[in-house]
Formats: sequence, C-alpha cells, structure tokens
Amino acid sequence: MQVAIALFDRLTALDAVGPYEVLQRIPELDIVFVGKEVGEVRTENGFLGMTVDAKYEDVPTPDVVVVPGGIGSRVAAKDDDVLSWILTAHETSLFTTSVCTGALILGATGLLDGLTATTHWSAYDTLAKSGATPIDTRVVEHLDKRIITAAGVSSGIDMALRLVEILFDATAAQAAQLMIEYDPMPPFDTGSIAKATPEVLERVDQYAAERD
Amino acid sequence: MQVAIALFDRLTALDAVGPYEVLQRIPELDIVFVGKEVGEVRTENGFLGMTVDAKYEDVPTPDVVVVPGGIGSRVAAKDDDVLSWILTAHETSLFTTSVCTGALILGATGLLDGLTATTHWSAYDTLAKSGATPIDTRVVEHLDKRIITAAGVSSGIDMALRLVEILFDATAAQAAQLMIEYDPMPPFDTGSIAKATPEVLERVDQYAAERD
Repeated sequence: MQVAIALFDRLTALDAVGPYEVLQRIPELDIVFVGKEVGEVRTENGFLGMTVDAKYEDVPTPDVVVVPGGIGSRVAAKDDDVLSWILTAHETSLFTTSVCTGALILGATGLLDGLTATTHWSAYDTLAKSGATPIDTRVVEHLDKRIITAAGVSSGIDMALRLVEILFDATAAQAAQLMIEYDPMPPFDTGSIAKATPEVLERVDQYAAERD
Repeated sequence: MQVAIALFDRLTALDAVGPYEVLQRIPELDIVFVGKEVGEVRTENGFLGMTVDAKYEDVPTPDVVVVPGGIGSRVAAKDDDVLSWILTAHETSLFTTSVCTGALILGATGLLDGLTATTHWSAYDTLAKSGATPIDTRVVEHLDKRIITAAGVSSGIDMALRLVEILFDATAAQAAQLMIEYDPMPPFDTGSIAKATPEVLERVDQYAAERD
C-alpha cells in the first residue's frame, strides 16, 4: 500500500513528519515524498531541508495522500501541478488527507466544497472561502468521501493513528502509538485556540510577525 | 541563540522534527542541522531524506544541543566525531538534550554517568550500561548539569516546550504550543509501556522484526 506525502517549499515540517512517523511503523505501508521536482525543499524559515524523491506525475495512484501545510501552502494552493495531482490521485485513493493549512490546498481543488473540515485555528476564514464549513475539531473524517482533515501541525499524529485504525485495525494503531511513545504530557494546556489567554495570543502575534 | 540538532543516517525523523517544530517558533532561536558531512541523511527505513547543513566541527559552541535517536544511534554512539562534538559543545552549551535513543549517544560520551535519565522504553537496559539510571518518565531534567533527556520519539515535543519555558518564559512555551496546535487527542491511551497490553506488545514485536 503506497502513501504519498507532498512536500513543497516553506512547508511546516511536523505537518508531514507527524503522519510519516506513525505510518512508517506499519510494514504494509510504503511511503514516498512527492513534489514538483525531485530534490530538496526547505521548511518555512529555511532551517530544514527535506528531500522530494518523486515528481507528482510519477506517483499518480497512491493509496493514501497526505497534504501538509505551512506558509508555502499559499503558493501550493495556486499551483495547478499540485491541484491536478491531488484530484487525479483522489479518484483512486483510499484516503486523501490534509494536516494544518494543507486543508487550504485540498480546498482549492474543490474536494472540500460542502463538507465540514478543519485546519490550523488561524485559517478558518480562509478555509471557508473554499466552500468548506470549518470546525474547531482535531480530526474531521468523511469516510464516505474518503477525506480526512486534521487541525494545526501536531494534529497530524492523531489523524494518522486514526487512519491506521481504519486501514488496518486498532491494534496496529496502538502499536504505532507505543512505538513512538505517544503518551503526550505537554507542560501547559494551551494547545487550542479555545484555551488561549490574551497574553499567549499576543505573543503568538509577535512571533508570527517576526518570522513571516 | 543557536540550536544545533544532530542528524545521522537511520535516525528517527520525529525525534529531530518534534523539538525543531517547537524551537523554530521562537524568533530568538537560530537552528542548524549538523552532521558528519554536509548533505542528505536518510531516516530509519530510508523513506525520508533530511539535509545536514553544517559539519559538527563547524558548529562548536551551540547554545542548545539536541541529539535524536533511531536505529542509527547504535552507529552514532560509537562515532568519535559525534561523541567528541557533544563533549566539546557541552562545555559551553546552555543545555545538552536527547530524544529517544539519542540518550544512548549522550550516554556514550559519559555525560549521563551517575544521573537519572530517560530514553525509548525499549532501551532502558542499554542506557543503564552507560552508568545512567533509566526512569520511565517523559522528560528528565538536570538543570544543574544542563542536561535534559526525553523518552521515545514524540516526547521531544514536550521536552522542547519545557526547554523554551526555561530559556525564555512560560508565555513563550505556551505560544509555541498554540502555534503548533499541540492539544493532543490520541484515539487510544496506549502511548507508554505501562499501558501496553500483551496484544499490542506482540504487534510491536512483529512490526519491529519486519522493519529492522
């Protein structure tokens, strides 16, 4: 079973690597990182290079599609190579998924039109423009449509565990969870917009302005 | 402030990318991925290429050191280039940290001798051989020794949030947590060895045997 994870310049690394790290634990899954050109892309601020091993057109029928987000999603969502690949792949994929603002790329294909979906909390308004109804939920599943969207960045880990459960069984997902020792214990409980204080939001604005 | 994250062949991607994704949110932090040679390394099963941008010797005095793990840690823990870099860097670093079996590499330098430490749940016995006392805790801090070890794979996210709190303030850590929407909701509660059923452990053994 083939999993294709899209990479593009200025992506958010964890959007792609979270699902990757879960899915690569399952021996039945082969994972290929795809993009416009074979070679290196760089993450949002350029600190990390990741390798595209195959061009989109060379992986036309993956069983699972994972579309990450990041600042670069703004460009990717206007790139016909990306959008036509997703649309073609979705014709035969078992599941087409997004993490974070990867939902804006899925949305640009029209696949989310009329569906509930989720994305990074900062991007609900943009997602709505694609005809989707954004909801503040960690993972939104449309099993009949074979589409799953996950919220911001780290939520791709939760999404991928659920995907493994659907594709294989609960034991497979639990085994992957144990292998990555995913027993989360964040030192704070401020991981969702509903829990954020004004002080934290102000700091987020400051950080985002400095790095955008 | 400079953060150096070590990369080597057959590393576990999320061990490195989890802390990276937290730390890169803080504008005061510059992050550089270091290794034996500039260029690409591949993750455990070879599915993902990541780029080393600087050789160890070219980043002698980082403020923060992050050492990931993975199958490749067995080789890295015997590599004098890696070990001597860590020892030299630790002389001036604010914190020297490990994720997962990166603790075995730290252990091989002697830095963990006589200290409590943590690692992936499958590697406690190996860690003990370095003179450390392994404990089943998500993050083990020795602030006086400037050493922090994290448990398996995903625990590097929790470790990095705590590191940001120590280096900056709680608001910075909370802002990073919100930016990566780290409000974990795993579909199962089997992320630690204490919670694993025999059926899950059997599957882990099966998967590990198929991919090692």
